[in-house]
Amino acid sequence: MSVHSKLYEGKAKILYTTDDPEVLLADFKDDATAFNAQKRGSIIGKGEINCSISSQLFKQLEVYGIKTHFIDNPSPNQMRVKSVKILPLEVVVRNIAAGSLSQQTGLAVGTLLKQPLVEFYYKNDQLGDPLLTRDRLLLLELATVEQVDAITNLALQINEFLNGFWQQCGITLVDFKLEFGLDSQQQILLADEISPDTCRLWNTAEADPNRRIMDKDRFRRDLGNVEDAYQEVLQRVLQLVESKN
Amino acid sequence: MSVHSKLYEGKAKILYTTDDPEVLLADFKDDATAFNAQKRGSIIGKGEINCSISSQLFKQLEVYGIKTHFIDNPSPNQMRVKSVKILPLEVVVRNIAAGSLSQQTGLAVGTLLKQPLVEFYYKNDQLGDPLLTRDRLLLLELATVEQVDAITNLALQINEFLNGFWQQCGITLVDFKLEFGLDSQQQILLADEISPDTCRLWNTAEADPNRRIMDKDRFRRDLGNVEDAYQEVLQRVLQLVESKN
Ligand SMILES: Nc1ncnc2c1ncn2[C@@H]1O[C@H](COP(=O)(O)OP(=O)(O)O)[C@@H](O)[C@H]1O
Ligand SMILES: Nc1ncnc2c1ncn2[C@@H]1O[C@H](COP(=O)(O)OP(=O)(O)O)[C@@H](O)[C@H]1O
Ligand SMILES: [Mg+2]
Ligand SMILES: [Mg+2]
Repeated sequence: MSVHSKLYEGKAKILYTTDDPEVLLADFKDDATAFNAQKRGSIIGKGEINCSISSQLFKQLEVYGIKTHFIDNPSPNQMRVKSVKILPLEVVVRNIAAGSLSQQTGLAVGTLLKQPLVEFYYKNDQLGDPLLTRDRLLLLELATVEQVDAITNLALQINEFLNGFWQQCGITLVDFKLEFGLDSQQQILLADEISPDTCRLWNTAEADPNRRIMDKDRFRRDLGNVEDAYQEVLQRVLQLVESKN
Repeated sequence: MSVHSKLYEGKAKILYTTDDPEVLLADFKDDATAFNAQKRGSIIGKGEINCSISSQLFKQLEVYGIKTHFIDNPSPNQMRVKSVKILPLEVVVRNIAAGSLSQQTGLAVGTLLKQPLVEFYYKNDQLGDPLLTRDRLLLLELATVEQVDAITNLALQINEFLNGFWQQCGITLVDFKLEFGLDSQQQILLADEISPDTCRLWNTAEADPNRRIMDKDRFRRDLGNVEDAYQEVLQRVLQLVESKN
């Protein structure tokens, strides 16, 4: 595979075109940003860790029946992916109240939701990724009704799988963000990444509300031991995957 | 009617109990607030103006078939109303993009929406009246599914009526906020007020984007001539109502 030119540099990854127009190379960076890139820093080893965790999850999700953009890993921090047209939506699934849901509703952080909540945000850095109602999403024509319904179902299925997966790692899946895209046949594929950058992951055995955090909230909230937490998540993922082979 | 004690003092009105437990007296104040009460001031004559406009609109809406809390006016800035348990929702109907819809979606102010948008906000000053998705509203148990659907239908009917009413006044109805409550029989009644404090009203004949504004945005944005605008709205309402009698 010969890598061609840089297609897009995002906050966490660089996308390169390849000799195959239907394939992109995603290069995972150590760069970390938060609060719509107002806070910037770096988490050493994050590129490799997030690429590895994402790759394992995409592979398992494929087995579970979810179509993803994942192809393979040319190197530990690189993922070959099917090129898609990303829908400008951040699809958030929540099992437990935290983050902006808690801030905006007054629901205490840690409140178990009776059923998972699937939420759509407008992926638009300029506007600060605002929450969308279904009507606003359709008004802005960010997706069709059929796509919204299909994505909601996919998000719930992915949540089913991930809840079980992380539970086996001793990790509680609080919430996570997904991105979906359309391939050349207009098929919806799960894209982007699933990692401690995009999930809230709590160490199930740990009761302390700060010490249990194993995700980017450690960076956002300056809780320290960021690299250790990311490493620990990767170790538990690899252990689980190996125990199954 | 003997007025008993002050039940609640809000930002724009004071509610008093009366000798009839099912009846409250709403006293409309000249006080004006904006941005979740961070900005405070006073609009001379607003109490009487808003009470008069609201009363006319509630009377007409009753004729149109909408159940409201309105009973009568003991004095120009006072309204006797049926006591209801207010649902903690701000129900916003939008015909044209403006305000937070424009800020959060990037839709230019003045964009005509293909169909009216009914939106729910959590009436909660502490939380800053955040936008609610349907799922968040139901999660917080702020209303039942049946109530949400009934209120959505009522809001659209009210919008139908108000669009025609304001049009006949030479005024374009951009958007407005409604509050609903439950009476002692759990019936949904339209409550609170409908006034230049709670509607965006643009002088249809005026093209200038600042001069056309006839509502609380003049106060919010320090555009001047606030009292004149409120007076002008009242005059047009009274003229229309009289022309029909
Ligand atoms: N399979 C794919 N095809 C095309 N674009 C993708 C694919 N997967 C992810 N992307 C996009 O790659 C970009 C780079 O990722 P990232 O660094 O996380 O960017 P951002 O700063 O926009 O979050 C994002 O815009 C993401 O939506
Ligand atoms: N018919 C009614 N019965 C009971 N409460 C009402 C009724 N109509 C309006 N209210 C409530 O009266 C309160 C006073 O109005 P207002 O000054 O606008 O208050 P706020 O500062 O909460 O907006 C509001 O909380 C409003 O919801
Ligand atoms: Mg990203
Ligand atoms: Mg009010």
